[in-house]
Amino acid sequence: MRSNDASNLTCETIAAVATPPGAGGVGIVRLSGPAAAACALRVFQPTASGFSGFEPRYMHHGRILAPSISPAGADNARMVDEVLAVFFPAPHSFTGEDVVEIHGHSGPLVVAEVLRTLLAAGEDLGVREARCGEFSKRAFLNGKMDLVQVEAVAEAVAADSPAGLALAQTRLAGGLGRRVDDLRSRLEALRTQLCVAVDFPEDEVECLAPEELASGVGGLVEALDALAGAASRRRVWEEGALVVLAGRVNAGKSSLLNAVAGSERAIVTDRAGTTRDFIEERLLLDGLPVTLVDTAGLRADGELLTGEMDPVEAEGVSRSRTLAARADLLVLVLDGARPEPLGAPERELLGHVDLGKVLVVLNKADVRAPETSPAAAVAEALQDIGLGMVEIVSISAATGQGLDAFTQAVRRRLAGDDAAPRPGELAPNLRQARAMERAASELRDLLADIEAGFPYDVLGVRLETASDILAEITGAIASEDVLNAIFDSFCIGK
Amino acid sequence: MRSNDASNLTCETIAAVATPPGAGGVGIVRLSGPAAAACALRVFQPTASGFSGFEPRYMHHGRILAPSISPAGADNARMVDEVLAVFFPAPHSFTGEDVVEIHGHSGPLVVAEVLRTLLAAGEDLGVREARCGEFSKRAFLNGKMDLVQVEAVAEAVAADSPAGLALAQTRLAGGLGRRVDDLRSRLEALRTQLCVAVDFPEDEVECLAPEELASGVGGLVEALDALAGAASRRRVWEEGALVVLAGRVNAGKSSLLNAVAGSERAIVTDRAGTTRDFIEERLLLDGLPVTLVDTAGLRADGELLTGEMDPVEAEGVSRSRTLAARADLLVLVLDGARPEPLGAPERELLGHVDLGKVLVVLNKADVRAPETSPAAAVAEALQDIGLGMVEIVSISAATGQGLDAFTQAVRRRLAGDDAAPRPGELAPNLRQARAMERAASELRDLLADIEAGFPYDVLGVRLETASDILAEITGAIASEDVLNAIFDSFCIGK
Repeated sequence: MRSNDASNLTCETIAAVATPPGAGGVGIVRLSGPAAAACALRVFQPTASGFSGFEPRYMHHGRILAPSISPAGADNARMVDEVLAVFFPAPHSFTGEDVVEIHGHSGPLVVAEVLRTLLAAGEDLGVREARCGEFSKRAFLNGKMDLVQVEAVAEAVAADSPAGLALAQTRLAGGLGRRVDDLRSRLEALRTQLCVAVDFPEDEVECLAPEELASGVGGLVEALDALAGAASRRRVWEEGALVVLAGRVNAGKSSLLNAVAGSERAIVTDRAGTTRDFIEERLLLDGLPVTLVDTAGLRADGELLTGEMDPVEAEGVSRSRTLAARADLLVLVLDGARPEPLGAPERELLGHVDLGKVLVVLNKADVRAPETSPAAAVAEALQDIGLGMVEIVSISAATGQGLDAFTQAVRRRLAGDDAAPRPGELAPNLRQARAMERAASELRDLLADIEAGFPYDVLGVRLETASDILAEITGAIASEDVLNAIFDSFCIGK
Repeated sequence: MRSNDASNLTCETIAAVATPPGAGGVGIVRLSGPAAAACALRVFQPTASGFSGFEPRYMHHGRILAPSISPAGADNARMVDEVLAVFFPAPHSFTGEDVVEIHGHSGPLVVAEVLRTLLAAGEDLGVREARCGEFSKRAFLNGKMDLVQVEAVAEAVAADSPAGLALAQTRLAGGLGRRVDDLRSRLEALRTQLCVAVDFPEDEVECLAPEELASGVGGLVEALDALAGAASRRRVWEEGALVVLAGRVNAGKSSLLNAVAGSERAIVTDRAGTTRDFIEERLLLDGLPVTLVDTAGLRADGELLTGEMDPVEAEGVSRSRTLAARADLLVLVLDGARPEPLGAPERELLGHVDLGKVLVVLNKADVRAPETSPAAAVAEALQDIGLGMVEIVSISAATGQGLDAFTQAVRRRLAGDDAAPRPGELAPNLRQARAMERAASELRDLLADIEAGFPYDVLGVRLETASDILAEITGAIASEDVLNAIFDSFCIGK
């Protein structure tokens, strides 16, 4: 299907901004397809007087001119930007097609205008705006990258922790693709031996004993399980975790957020915020990327669900609840300076959430009278309402006391004792892990079939199915649905 | 001073990320200075086997390799990114120095690692991280751009409205620089004639009559006033306006914000938000860039300043006040469904702000009983407290009634009846306008001196001063302070 799709696609030339949105030094607009050079030449005015068309991969200086609105002709053309233009002839380009890049200034409106100018100039040449992931899709369909690498590019770009980047880079370098290809080769070797046994049953030399087959398949299952297991362990390091702070207005959620934000390394990538209604901080806790969100406060009088609430406040509480439900960890902040830190609103909240995701923080450790022990009292109160297993950390957001214990508790709850992934470590992403699990499951069924003494030609079908599933990982075989799911998640210009 | 500084600067090679931060297709790291190529070659592994160094302006495919942590040598080097590398030999580069660009994937961590790898490899070559605006500063000092163009690049990049972009592009194209040079030439021509008159007082043919001098100077003053005036008129179109919504919790500030945001074109550039504590929308109102901010609500019981308030709420109110003080327009939203929309908290607020910046919006026009006329009542109430001149707009954020009148009122209050700037329209930025005003002021003093019959050699000094001030605009003469102020405001990589 690769070649088919590729030939369909190459009829059209696509264009998009290829650099991130925002202000910086350089902004790039990219064209890919047969009309790329022709379209660019219509609006590019070279500085060099001897210019006679694009030299391959050479950066030509010049200007992008937008046709004037007045009918006075080209002399009145308006300069859109001063640029460098470069042409990559097929097949030695990112997409494998003819590609032109226009490098100009990077303002969002500037690059948008360069793109608009190119689209207008190339309309009759079939130049159109690129869809999400369309450049990468063409690169894949033209055999420039396998699917693991295509995904790794997106994952490396989106990485916001060194650990996530290291995992993506290893996949990008081709290590995981090669490992999968290797497993598939072993599987295919078994299949070949099976076929020989089926086709030449009399030939004892070539025959594969059921025990040998089972042993080979068992080894593959083990390898696939190990790889797929790495994915679930490593996922939080790549994707990060959502930690939501809940508690009444004065319990000190904001102070805790600010204290942690002040002491830990902030993530400053531009990934869209989790919420525009609440304050959030994105941090690395011992290398683990965490988004910490401060939600609207619980009402102090317990009327959270039943009492009168103005619509704005009700909306805020409703959004807090939605966010709490999505959280990987819910931190309930209690006001340790109150006589009864665990009051009605807190009990109400604990009644509505997954307790396995709750960490209780007892704040204001510094203002408590020394003879009282609110932590013990809270533990007892939790025990009384049947929540004795909920973990409690005592802190003072004001003095910083207990902050380390808090961040360590958060990290442990989210990632256990796992160390951060290191460069070179192989771990598939979720799609790849699911395919590995499906292949392993097919092979487990095969082991049962071998045990049951099924004939070799039946066993061969399961081997073929498992092999095809593994082929999906690198895209050697890939359905249109899988491809669409992958490329649609990419941004435009990718 | 240009040549001096340039020779100092070129001792060092600087490096920085040149594309905007964020996810996209391409990320660029740029090196400029004598060691640019040598540094890049240490970490760039070309794909082509025949590679024997960078061909000028040719995009070479390859990989950036980071030295391995283990001592096993180069074979263990870790791939940081797959890249294109391109070398621009001096002087035909952005900075006028040797420049190398590494084009890789655009993830913030990816480009940061490419940059780190280059800095580590080039440490003994004197390669260091670039400071803010350092690439542009070198381009200016090496004569690649004048100061107006340098500023215009930053302004075009930061533009978030088509009007602002058009003004910046015109300056970038050199139109304003040429206009200033032209005025300065006229001024210098007068000065030459004065000098001749001073040096050869007997030669009647060459003598410049005081009336002629005054007429010439008067023409220059007029031209400078017109240009500088354009700056103040155009400034709001380039920089945008801050509109702050105030009012009690239930008056409908959020609904108004959402209604306007839903009907007007949003600005989606990544300029840093005005506030992280409040919800804001960035919009184009009839081409005028406006940031609309919803602040914390006024307390309904008038205890805004005196009553008990918890610390979190007090902090919110204090931030609202700071923001209101910075606003170009303060929109006080009244709840038209209440018996007395203009209550104690609203009166209190009006007592503390610049009334020239206030627009009163009477919301919930749809829920009012038809026989009442709250607008009239509010107008009367305002009259009673001596604020009869404050403008009132009646709307319903819920139904959309009156929204157009509201946006028109906002636009009119911010930009009068001025049309949006068009491509080709000359308007200086604030720095340039101030220099024009200073030059015009010097020339006005000169006119008084001519009137007073001062001798020509005294008059000549004022002409020279005015000429030097104009030279600051394009940077033909520029103090280190002016240059630092300009380049320090640029981002790193610029």
